[in-house]
Amino acid sequence: MPKYRLLTPGPVAVPERVLRAMAGTLLHHRAPEFLPLLDEVRANLKRVFQTERDVLVLASSGTGAMEAAVTSLTSPGERAIVVRGGKFGERWAELCETYGVEPICVDVEWGRAVDPEQVRAAFDREPEARVLFVQASETSTAVYHPIKELCQVVRERPGALIVVDGISGVGVHDLPMDAWGIDVLVSGSQKSWLLPPGLSFVALSERAEARLATAKSPRYYFDLGKELKGQRKNSPAYTPAVSLIVGLREALRMILEDGLEPVFARHAFLAKLTRAAMQGMGLKLFAPDSPSFACTAVCLPDGVDGNKFIRVMRDKHVMTIAEGQGHIAGKVFRIGHMGDLDEYDMLSAIAGVELTLADLGYPIKLGEGTRAALEVLRDRGNA
Amino acid sequence: MPKYRLLTPGPVAVPERVLRAMAGTLLHHRAPEFLPLLDEVRANLKRVFQTERDVLVLASSGTGAMEAAVTSLTSPGERAIVVRGGKFGERWAELCETYGVEPICVDVEWGRAVDPEQVRAAFDREPEARVLFVQASETSTAVYHPIKELCQVVRERPGALIVVDGISGVGVHDLPMDAWGIDVLVSGSQKSWLLPPGLSFVALSERAEARLATAKSPRYYFDLGKELKGQRKNSPAYTPAVSLIVGLREALRMILEDGLEPVFARHAFLAKLTRAAMQGMGLKLFAPDSPSFACTAVCLPDGVDGNKFIRVMRDKHVMTIAEGQGHIAGKVFRIGHMGDLDEYDMLSAIAGVELTLADLGYPIKLGEGTRAALEVLRDRGNA
Repeated sequence: MPKYRLLTPGPVAVPERVLRAMAGTLLHHRAPEFLPLLDEVRANLKRVFQTERDVLVLASSGTGAMEAAVTSLTSPGERAIVVRGGKFGERWAELCETYGVEPICVDVEWGRAVDPEQVRAAFDREPEARVLFVQASETSTAVYHPIKELCQVVRERPGALIVVDGISGVGVHDLPMDAWGIDVLVSGSQKSWLLPPGLSFVALSERAEARLATAKSPRYYFDLGKELKGQRKNSPAYTPAVSLIVGLREALRMILEDGLEPVFARHAFLAKLTRAAMQGMGLKLFAPDSPSFACTAVCLPDGVDGNKFIRVMRDKHVMTIAEGQGHIAGKVFRIGHMGDLDEYDMLSAIAGVELTLADLGYPIKLGEGTRAALEVLRDRGNA
Repeated sequence: MPKYRLLTPGPVAVPERVLRAMAGTLLHHRAPEFLPLLDEVRANLKRVFQTERDVLVLASSGTGAMEAAVTSLTSPGERAIVVRGGKFGERWAELCETYGVEPICVDVEWGRAVDPEQVRAAFDREPEARVLFVQASETSTAVYHPIKELCQVVRERPGALIVVDGISGVGVHDLPMDAWGIDVLVSGSQKSWLLPPGLSFVALSERAEARLATAKSPRYYFDLGKELKGQRKNSPAYTPAVSLIVGLREALRMILEDGLEPVFARHAFLAKLTRAAMQGMGLKLFAPDSPSFACTAVCLPDGVDGNKFIRVMRDKHVMTIAEGQGHIAGKVFRIGHMGDLDEYDMLSAIAGVELTLADLGYPIKLGEGTRAALEVLRDRGNA
């Protein structure tokens, strides 16, 4: 059996320690054995979210938590500012439209970060807008948007809220929710959380919680007010995904045993290593200026078909990496840095990319990407 | 460590074979290794749903799939008939109200099954109503509603659909979707499916699928049209709960190795055994006339406090059973028959109930419940 390598920006490789935890006897979510587990999970989620606020756990993919943020904070007929620079920015806009909220889109070239001045100008043009929706890490383009600066822009507007999709941001980039004044922060289990997909997370500032009472968009399963009331008493509104929450306890322990700073640094370093390697083999980065640490997006050289590239990586080298999405499908590939991965896994991915380019007849001098990565590793050792 | 026994009508005990399957290396949902697994799951879901139609898998609790059914089939301003005879009937009504659909409630005394004539009369009074929402097994009262007869009532109305919450019904009661003409059938992983919570299932008849195009209620994460399009190509709209789906493959194999008829018969028999035992110890059944096979609801004798009863079962006997919900909280307890349970587990539960009643000072003659159950077991052996 060839060894399978999962190298996408979600789902990610799950550590054995987490897999084993999830394989234990299934508990009821109201069993006394489960309550201390929930207490621990709630406390540790706050540490990773860097907030004193409650972090809600929902049984859904990350998109469910995005929907929860939209419907719990808006009313039909309102306008909201949306940073749209990738597939997930588009998702905020689509969610707004679905619920009768007009998205005022700040369009950003894919591969670039938003300029906070663009957002300030959008608020100037739309002073009635009461919410900004943005990604921290836009997974489709591998861009990090400047959340700290965007928080400052939003804070200039009394009554405005900033809702951050941190699905591939939290636990990857330093996003101190309380210190920066993020109003809503969303994440998803299949990213930095070392877990399978199936859980999403969302925390609300006091300001955001106050908005719940006046927001009129319809919501039931994703009603954050109801969940806040319940989960503060360890009593979620609907049956929680118990086994994934057991895994979450173990994953949170692993994250906090490492410490948040080292975890952010690990993602940053794996991203740096990968970027160096791709440039070392002569490939262009899709998002050179403000790269996300969740994944690296790489432009395929002319004449190399993206679908074929992904297929050879997959079928010959047994590595799942991610394709480009939207209008960059076929032109870009993405390598993830989250999950149970270290620098040697990145070297495997880099080697896989080199070999696949050679397989496809691209005139690559083998080893140049790997050499660049090794130099980054050596320099870290000397630092 | 005392041995933990999970005896609620969901979450249920998960067999080791399923737990082990879920502990394997995490695959990407688009990895080639995963696609045959999805093919197998899709085929076997159809067998358990007894339908030729696609069965969609969502990452949510069962309530999410109920919401999907409501928003995908209705438009604001419409009216819908709702059978309301328990907490989950109320949930259909709440979901309708949330989305601006007026629920015309056929109220049924808790503990009783709906009379199809009541539903026929409701349609006569509300000829514009285009959907009937009902539970197969109303988990809160342990009642089975007569789905076959309700399908016949709905079929008399051209353009009307019957949406069945089979969350604790599918894989428990014989609910042949196609043969009976059920238009939408919903279920949830933490019930008969031998799985942890976190997946829900929903299948739509051709009639129901045609309705999707005209239904105007807002939906995004729970957009069944989008999911149908994607899942028919093994490409769900949002990241699926991969590890639970791996467990689902194994659970479906176990269910189909047993065979559907024996699986229905097992649930029916465990329910029968439990009812006999409860009556044997002098307790009254809450739903004597049309009992669900998913769980048995039992009236607590006067003077025995329900919360205390549940607590002693839990703390002294390490068994999680379910309390009463809504206005029967404190007056009823419920024992589940789904999941990795057999007749000896039921005998444990029965013994636990006898001992707990004794613990609480109720004048019970120990062993009468167990004797009644043993007689049922003996008679099965002789049959």
